[in-house]
Amino acid sequence: MLDSTVHAQLAAILPPAALLVSAEDTKPYECDGLTLFRAQPAAVALPENEAQIVAVLKACHAARIPVVARGAGTSLSGGALPDPEGVVLSLAKLKRIIAIDALARTAVVQPGVRNLAISEAAAAYGLYYAPDPSSQIACSIGGNVAENAGGVHCLKYGLTVHNVRRVRGVLVTGEIVEFGGDALDSAGYDLLALVTGSEGLLAVITEITVKLLPKPQLAQVALAAFDDVEKAGVAVGSIIGAGIIPAGLEMMDQPAVRAVEEFVHANYPVDAAAVLLVESDGTPEEVAAEMAEIRRVLTQSGATEIRVSKDEAQRNLYWSGRKAAFPAVGRISPDYYCIDGTIPRKALPRVLRAIAAWSVEYGLPCANVFHAGDGNLHPLILFDANNPGESARTIAFGDRILRLCIEVGGTVTGEHGVGVEKLDSMCVQFSTEELARFHGIKEAFDAYRLLNPGKAVPTLHRCAEMGKMHIHHGEVPHPDLPRF
Amino acid sequence: MLDSTVHAQLAAILPPAALLVSAEDTKPYECDGLTLFRAQPAAVALPENEAQIVAVLKACHAARIPVVARGAGTSLSGGALPDPEGVVLSLAKLKRIIAIDALARTAVVQPGVRNLAISEAAAAYGLYYAPDPSSQIACSIGGNVAENAGGVHCLKYGLTVHNVRRVRGVLVTGEIVEFGGDALDSAGYDLLALVTGSEGLLAVITEITVKLLPKPQLAQVALAAFDDVEKAGVAVGSIIGAGIIPAGLEMMDQPAVRAVEEFVHANYPVDAAAVLLVESDGTPEEVAAEMAEIRRVLTQSGATEIRVSKDEAQRNLYWSGRKAAFPAVGRISPDYYCIDGTIPRKALPRVLRAIAAWSVEYGLPCANVFHAGDGNLHPLILFDANNPGESARTIAFGDRILRLCIEVGGTVTGEHGVGVEKLDSMCVQFSTEELARFHGIKEAFDAYRLLNPGKAVPTLHRCAEMGKMHIHHGEVPHPDLPRF
Repeated sequence: MLDSTVHAQLAAILPPAALLVSAEDTKPYECDGLTLFRAQPAAVALPENEAQIVAVLKACHAARIPVVARGAGTSLSGGALPDPEGVVLSLAKLKRIIAIDALARTAVVQPGVRNLAISEAAAAYGLYYAPDPSSQIACSIGGNVAENAGGVHCLKYGLTVHNVRRVRGVLVTGEIVEFGGDALDSAGYDLLALVTGSEGLLAVITEITVKLLPKPQLAQVALAAFDDVEKAGVAVGSIIGAGIIPAGLEMMDQPAVRAVEEFVHANYPVDAAAVLLVESDGTPEEVAAEMAEIRRVLTQSGATEIRVSKDEAQRNLYWSGRKAAFPAVGRISPDYYCIDGTIPRKALPRVLRAIAAWSVEYGLPCANVFHAGDGNLHPLILFDANNPGESARTIAFGDRILRLCIEVGGTVTGEHGVGVEKLDSMCVQFSTEELARFHGIKEAFDAYRLLNPGKAVPTLHRCAEMGKMHIHHGEVPHPDLPRF
Repeated sequence: MLDSTVHAQLAAILPPAALLVSAEDTKPYECDGLTLFRAQPAAVALPENEAQIVAVLKACHAARIPVVARGAGTSLSGGALPDPEGVVLSLAKLKRIIAIDALARTAVVQPGVRNLAISEAAAAYGLYYAPDPSSQIACSIGGNVAENAGGVHCLKYGLTVHNVRRVRGVLVTGEIVEFGGDALDSAGYDLLALVTGSEGLLAVITEITVKLLPKPQLAQVALAAFDDVEKAGVAVGSIIGAGIIPAGLEMMDQPAVRAVEEFVHANYPVDAAAVLLVESDGTPEEVAAEMAEIRRVLTQSGATEIRVSKDEAQRNLYWSGRKAAFPAVGRISPDYYCIDGTIPRKALPRVLRAIAAWSVEYGLPCANVFHAGDGNLHPLILFDANNPGESARTIAFGDRILRLCIEVGGTVTGEHGVGVEKLDSMCVQFSTEELARFHGIKEAFDAYRLLNPGKAVPTLHRCAEMGKMHIHHGEVPHPDLPRF
């Protein structure tokens, strides 16, 4: 229930129908892409401009009411999970592309603009926006900045943080701030990078300048089949080791390939133990030379079949399977849980072996989809929430994968953020001193912890209750410690 | 004078001869590359390992004594200027390359390792470290991280922040922290980016993992002469506008070209009003195609002469002029002041015109050297500190250039940091709310403000005294306001 004074204030700020308070109206906002967690907010505000955002934040701050900013609601870590006492601040109506500067190769956009819409608008200038999360048709650029989203091309072109030049936002107290600019460097601490990936805890983003890239003249993708998952993992290292930085380097194991093939009919080799997709882009000469080298390495690594896309239609078909992997798995299992962790490439075979063994141990099938080139894993654990105990087993399995990621020198996020999902893993990855710095930064921006409370950074109390099992700085946790 | 208790503590921590306290011994540390500012420290500590750094910091923190970390002392913004009451913590003895991982393409190094030494060590694996500040033969990687250093190749390969994977450091209280890792993404706020470029205010860096890149098969540089500086400025925009991202895109005006030619005898065209250096790297096919396109654009832009390097010796000769520009100017003038600001590329002609007009107005010659591709200006104001009033006029001229950088949408640093030099400019560039966030972050790391005090972020009081003339968010300052 929203406090009646605040209700009246918000109603005065927002246009009619832009303030939702009934349980029926707020229901669609109870979760994001991570449906394991749900909570209905006290209200949903749908402002149309920055001035309304400022006013909403001031009203909520004065009343000490939590505010959760929400873009397209595609977060896979619960980044937009509402606070039951708070207001969801939807940025869906701020969806204007304000300017495209072809010479400076930048676009100025509002946070609600869909990721793909930027590239569509930039296409007229021969430009595009590089980061391409699989949800790019739906997800918003504001959410991409908040979560530091990646995508299949981030091996070569970087994560969101590498493709954002400037962010304008509103502090919880209502002040407007801008970080970054047209220049590469920023004076003072790098608050642009700090805000990017801060999961809505530091400011509400109202405008973003993104970097655009010239569209490559040509792109081709090689699809390679392997009769052994580890061989495919080794091939990934060999490609990178050969001095190639592919535009994309993705891996799927057999369960993922089969689920995808049934869904998109891309003629994937369903008998393969693993499939790699390796993309090369650039001038035709460059692509020809690089693709020849990719073929050579794949053959040496024991690929049983290699196909190279002959035209753009075939290239898109090959990618369609990878990009539809999550919904494809969703078709064959009542529920699935997508894990997001990152490991050094050299640890890929070891981690693959461990996941396979745990899949048997927990009795839960697991389809593996990886941004293999940059070591970002997306194991999809298949389960049925209606079977007693399966949800808990699923979470335990996922947690074990994330712990292994840390143990081999990786991290508990790749591109989905921490959200509510990985709070415990953060206790494992970071020391108390490091977590204290995170809290200090939050304090500098939002002393009452009203913006997206309970996300991204666990309380020290929570970590203490877990027994502070961090394995930071080379220590290895005792294997018998309880996992929760 | 160092407090006698602390003196005894530091003497017990450090090896003999690693604690300097006499005025004679500390004299060499009184300034860095920005000789306009000098101060002798109470002591200089030269630890040999991280444990000694931890102990020095704990002792100084307990006694509330300022600590200024120092690498090679090549800062051009006074980043390593000592505090007269404090300790300079030299990292010069930590100069070990700990590991090179050719498959992961990373090097783990201590902060005192020279920038160029990393590439030299990585050469055996066909790899190199991309950021190449002109001081790369002398400057240390720890200083590069602290200042987020750039270089002539950062247009294509990014600044230091884009090439660092992990930083290990010690907080002022003596705790060891690590930010970043082998993965692209980092969980929680991006403290790796935050610490990079934090100018020694947040932590003392003790170990760094840098990204290495495969050495391009071929690199060629085109040297183009123009009879008009603005034409050269327009050519820069046209190259980028044509979809080319050169490995380097540098510009020098006639005074710079002449000073350089006298010094390095690189056969630069001394009658040209401006010279561009445009580098292409990659496979031979790629370089051939790109260089043809570069030639085409340069010709269309009115270049009066274009030469392309025929071999590596000639390429290095062409670059030697650019890289020696600062010492070359140092030879022809008793003093020079190197400005470091960044502007959007499209503003280049306007800013060049303004600098030329102000050079006449202030009666001070100015040689211009630019990382033109990314809009990073280095006007070198020539002056003689012995002539009454010239230092003040020089500072006023430089300040005016930085204000113009902000006005056209740029920033007051490109790659040299803020240091003590640009504190006033920070008041112009950032709003009070934004500066308050900077101070909040400092508070989260170093509540007593002991690490590198008085650098990088001006106090709100200082800005208030200046009249808070910020032109942020589109406001333009009143032209009659005093500049200091």
